[in-house]
This record gives sequence, C-alpha cells and structure tokens, in this order.
Amino acid sequence: MTGKHDLVLERTLNAPRDLVWKAWTDPALLKQWFAPKPYEISEVEMDLKPGGVFRIGMVGPDGFDTGHGNPGCFLEVVDGEKLVWTSALAPQYRPAEGVGEGCESFPMTVIVTLADAGNGKTNYRAVALHKNEADSNTHAEMGFEGGWGKCAEQLEELAQGLAAHA
Amino acid sequence: MTGKHDLVLERTLNAPRDLVWKAWTDPALLKQWFAPKPYEISEVEMDLKPGGVFRIGMVGPDGFDTGHGNPGCFLEVVDGEKLVWTSALAPQYRPAEGVGEGCESFPMTVIVTLADAGNGKTNYRAVALHKNEADSNTHAEMGFEGGWGKCAEQLEELAQGLAAHA
Repeated sequence: MTGKHDLVLERTLNAPRDLVWKAWTDPALLKQWFAPKPYEISEVEMDLKPGGVFRIGMVGPDGFDTGHGNPGCFLEVVDGEKLVWTSALAPQYRPAEGVGEGCESFPMTVIVTLADAGNGKTNYRAVALHKNEADSNTHAEMGFEGGWGKCAEQLEELAQGLAAHA
Repeated sequence: MTGKHDLVLERTLNAPRDLVWKAWTDPALLKQWFAPKPYEISEVEMDLKPGGVFRIGMVGPDGFDTGHGNPGCFLEVVDGEKLVWTSALAPQYRPAEGVGEGCESFPMTVIVTLADAGNGKTNYRAVALHKNEADSNTHAEMGFEGGWGKCAEQLEELAQGLAAHA
C-alpha cells in the first residue's frame, strides 16, 4: 500500500477502537483534536460516505487563517476500520481546483486504518499519499510527523475521556 | 448530480443492460468500442474495484499515438448499474501527476449509469465532471458529444452482437 511518495504515522493508542473511530467520525469531536494545538479547527464539514464532503477550516492561536477550507471528499468508509479521503477530488468526485495553502497547496490522499491491539488499545495508522517526491518532501518539511503525531496524542486523550464517560 | 462544469451524453441503446455492462467491463470487449473509429484502443488495463486501475492507450488510424495511457482509477463499481472513475487519481487513490495529451490534459471524473428502458433496451448515461468551466469547454471543443456519441453507437452494436451470440 505504501510507496516512496508516502508519509506514514503509526501509533498504538491507549483507547479502544470504537471510541477512536467515534472521535474521528463525529465532527464535534474531530474538531477537538484534528489540529495540533495551539492551532484550532474552526469548522468541520463531513459527510461520511464515498463522494461525501470532507472540509476543515484551521486557524492559528492568534486567529490567523491558515488558508485551509477547500472541500475534499471521502473515498472509502469502512465502519470502525478504515477511512480514505482525498483533496484531489471535491465532493461528488469532481476534480478539485486544488489551490490552497499549507497542506492544501498540493493534492493528497489519506488512508486511516484502525485495528485492535488488545487490552483496549488501538493500532492507529495514517498514510498520506502524494503524487510525487517533491510534494512528499514538502509535506514532510511542513512537519507531517510532528503534526500528525501531536494530533494522534490529542485523539488518544479525547478517546480516553470518552471511555471514562461511557 | 450534474453541474455547470459537466458534459452529459445520454442515449437509449437497443441492447439489454447486462450485455451493455458486459461490453463496458470486459477489457477485450471495451477495446472494440471505446475509441471513436478510426481511432483505436491499443491497450486496456482495468481492475474493476474502488482504487483499481483504469488505463487505456489510444492510437490514430495512421498509428499516431494520442498520448493517452496515464493510469486513472475506479471509484465506484455497482454491478450492472454504475461505474465511476477518475483521472485525477492514479491507482490506490494516489493523486495523479496529471500530464497527458487530449482528454488526459485535464483531470476528469466520469459517471456511467445504466438503467432498463424496457423492451430489451438500456438507458445509457455518461457524465464527465470537470474542475472548472475552462476544462469543460476544452473537452466540449475536443468533441465530447460527437466522440462519446459515436462510441455509444459502437457500444450498442457490439452489445447487440453479444445478444445474437448469447
């Protein structure tokens, strides 16, 4: 599945798979962890089905608009297990205009998979696919590993909180 | 489903839906009708599942290479009813490099739907989605209506032949 133009984030989260999935797929929950703090998600639009919209707005700590907000779309949704979305296509699979800032300055597809790791833990894997090495390098230099890693920690913490209230 | 940046081809084919589907999804059959003659399909690669490859080579009557051949991918496959593929994504949903000639000089998504029209006929609909008006106009000027219309006739004829041999 992964190739030389891919970036991979892999973590074992100390939270059960169903709650990690919930934190990923409930827009109100996603909003709380999907940006590496002090960045914040200002808006989320998600329609969890192939061809459905996935759009986020992100702002900096000083209210700085990161230029995010282009609508992408989901490609695969396997309940509790797998999510695939891309910024190369807008909703209903229409080719995207593809001009944004930051992570939206190049097209990418992201494949997220969850698997039981035993003892209420979850193997969390996110792979970002790029069209070429240049885009992959740009994304790496923008801090993919650190950003997605920090978000994974925030996701873990949020899912743990959901468990405490379940 | 359709918007202002779309091109639509709609025909009632005098052939049953299952055979139109067969002519569309069997590479050896697709090869016989998918290029408007005297153009010819020189090669077909198709893996009929979401994320699976869809790639064709096309040559002119004098052996002229049309520059086609970039790999796209399927997005939806509903047996006998619907096919969606895009050139904006390469196989496994990787964002496509997107540099080709002719129809491959811009990204597009195509949605093909088949429906029973009664009396052994089939409503055939192909919608090409573009990222903006410029691409849509380019595609229209390249002869979308005539080309896809001619191919639809070739498809009808081939499917009729399959019926005669069924």
